[in-house]
Amino acid sequence: MKTLIAEVNISEGTNLDVVNQVKEALLEGGNIELVDLNSDKDHNRSVFTYRGEPEAVLEGTKRLSKKAIELIDMTVHKGSHPRMGAIDVVPFIPVKNVTTEEAIAISKEYGKYLGSLGVPVYFYEDSATREDRKLLPKIRKGQYEALPEKMQDESWRPDEGPFEFNPKSGATVTGARYPLIAFNVNLDTENIEVAKQIVKAVRGASGGFQNVRAIALELPEKKMVQVSMNLTNYSKTPIHRVYETIKTELTRYNVNIADTELVGPVPVYALEEMLKFYIKVNDDFTSEQIYS
Amino acid sequence: MKTLIAEVNISEGTNLDVVNQVKEALLEGGNIELVDLNSDKDHNRSVFTYRGEPEAVLEGTKRLSKKAIELIDMTVHKGSHPRMGAIDVVPFIPVKNVTTEEAIAISKEYGKYLGSLGVPVYFYEDSATREDRKLLPKIRKGQYEALPEKMQDESWRPDEGPFEFNPKSGATVTGARYPLIAFNVNLDTENIEVAKQIVKAVRGASGGFQNVRAIALELPEKKMVQVSMNLTNYSKTPIHRVYETIKTELTRYNVNIADTELVGPVPVYALEEMLKFYIKVNDDFTSEQIYS
Repeated sequence: MKTLIAEVNISEGTNLDVVNQVKEALLEGGNIELVDLNSDKDHNRSVFTYRGEPEAVLEGTKRLSKKAIELIDMTVHKGSHPRMGAIDVVPFIPVKNVTTEEAIAISKEYGKYLGSLGVPVYFYEDSATREDRKLLPKIRKGQYEALPEKMQDESWRPDEGPFEFNPKSGATVTGARYPLIAFNVNLDTENIEVAKQIVKAVRGASGGFQNVRAIALELPEKKMVQVSMNLTNYSKTPIHRVYETIKTELTRYNVNIADTELVGPVPVYALEEMLKFYIKVNDDFTSEQIYS
Repeated sequence: MKTLIAEVNISEGTNLDVVNQVKEALLEGGNIELVDLNSDKDHNRSVFTYRGEPEAVLEGTKRLSKKAIELIDMTVHKGSHPRMGAIDVVPFIPVKNVTTEEAIAISKEYGKYLGSLGVPVYFYEDSATREDRKLLPKIRKGQYEALPEKMQDESWRPDEGPFEFNPKSGATVTGARYPLIAFNVNLDTENIEVAKQIVKAVRGASGGFQNVRAIALELPEKKMVQVSMNLTNYSKTPIHRVYETIKTELTRYNVNIADTELVGPVPVYALEEMLKFYIKVNDDFTSEQIYS
């Protein structure tokens, strides 16, 4: 069985009747599992997380989108979270027996559909068509309010949909991205310089691991400092390798790891990798054996 | 949400029409997830593995049992697997937010029900009422064919149901047991003596860990020897502790661990324990965060 996850962010988190109608449209097919639905009033935004076979997820996302575009009007939207569309951002995350290429194909089909409904669509992350469209904040810069001006500028020609401002629906960002793991390592010291040195050592941008984004943080209440990381590809850059590297690098400062934090969802496949490293489980093992 | 697993072994693996009717009776309630159904012709036996809220699992097991008793006739049963009843053995396995005590209570209610249908019932494992009824092989000794004689002997008075031989249905063993983990450690040597020494070191019966059963095996094809283990309580005796102990004990023989095998289902909670040990994940983490 194949599993693809979609994490759809829509610009409505206050009117729960609207959120509910969107949800009903999503679940109409009956072949999708809604994992989480989070509506935030301050953000005035809801995040639908659901999973299923790739085709089922694609169809569900189409149904959801059609309904959301019908009910949400960006000309009156207010909320504290950055946004530029009624359907703001739609990542497709390959989870089980789905390649990144398949997830990209799904995101492209979805983008085409949304474009056909009159919404300008930009592909990001693994689906990006241009280097400067890889990251969401870059594409969303200036938010909804900047769209009329952007739509005058050839460099903002969308990947799908009309090259003109859509006042009611704004614009949408979609694409495939690998599951992200939020992994924080707390150090047994209050010396932020140590955390900064570790960040430098492990972060891709400064010569460390390719798929690690990292920042150094102070945790005054805990009397510690933290290396706060996003691992953007746990297959190529597994958790244990980052952990062991930090442990080793810390020896020169005579500092220990106090503890670590895995924040939010963690794919079971990332744990399989750890079993193989720490207790040498052989290749007969598959994460299908793990149950909860 | 609570999750209890039942693993029902029935004495029919050849006539798939019967197996199917039993399955339909189980799933009638609609609130149970059938995880696995394995029918073996040589064994002439089927194993239903399913999960759900404890009450739903209890009700489903009752429905399944009523149908199985109706359709299966032990007077004509032949198969290579040891068995003593139409419903042979029914372990209830607490998996998520269910205590062993709750699982015991469910098994007792189930035993009472089955007894009321005229089947002698023995409680085993954590539900055992006597020390000599803890283990299945002891209770099942002599199999179905020995039942007429046993039923003449006061020491075989069942825990539920009539104290007389039931030719059509035989007798049933049920009870709560902790999830079992089959964990094999392959050693980089062909010297069986080393494996025997390790078995002695880790096995509960010889002074090792309370919840470890172990034997030493030769693996001539792999040119290795194996410490083959069942961990019967991964909370009290976690995988990593057994692994690290074996690793340490091996140093005196200058032998390394070649690799290890996790065979069959592994509860995700057992992995949580490992995350905490190997990468110091703190207590904010719960296995609810793990998805597949």
